[in-house]
Amino acid sequence: MATEMIETLDPCCVPIVGEAMGVEVAVTLAAKFKALGDPTRLRLLSLVAAQEDREACVCDLTEPVALSQPTVSHHLKILVDAGLLTRSKRGTWSFYALVPGALDHLADVLQTPVTV
Amino acid sequence: MATEMIETLDPCCVPIVGEAMGVEVAVTLAAKFKALGDPTRLRLLSLVAAQEDREACVCDLTEPVALSQPTVSHHLKILVDAGLLTRSKRGTWSFYALVPGALDHLADVLQTPVTV
Repeated sequence: MATEMIETLDPCCVPIVGEAMGVEVAVTLAAKFKALGDPTRLRLLSLVAAQEDREACVCDLTEPVALSQPTVSHHLKILVDAGLLTRSKRGTWSFYALVPGALDHLADVLQTPVTV
Repeated sequence: MATEMIETLDPCCVPIVGEAMGVEVAVTLAAKFKALGDPTRLRLLSLVAAQEDREACVCDLTEPVALSQPTVSHHLKILVDAGLLTRSKRGTWSFYALVPGALDHLADVLQTPVTV
């Protein structure tokens, strides 16, 4: 039946189009989309992604978004908590890197299997 | 330069990975991701998408998510406002349909052009 719930699959592998989504999967995915639901966080993510090694020092992210470092760090923490970035400390500075495959997995969820 | 802003492109066609994102594009995209950042809305979207014609009557959506019709209608309105669903009235009931290509466009934004 079309409205059957899919509870047991990996959240990354349940396409929105084609199957109805179960509660647990929806909660996991919604947290990631919520993290993306802020213009500053999208810009920070894209700035990290635009670096050659997909990693950026927090010290290089404040100026492009014209925000204070505490504010930028707050947004970056939300992206880390959502599993989209990793954080590593080197000396005084924190470096943020894309979690390999994390955005691709969200893209797979959104991708329609047939033309709608 | 890696941190150069891209302001003029269609929001649907700016990949997060590879280019830094400008403010206007980020605001447009963030509104759509914010709409997806709620488990109930993800489930409603998937329920609509799971229908054979990618369209569902609001009367068929309340029971699967175990919420009242006003609450379901509130969530559906947010998805309509975000450009992810369309609403049409037939007699007493409202019907909600996927906006063709809307989820695919968001998926394109998230898709990494190279393996990270």
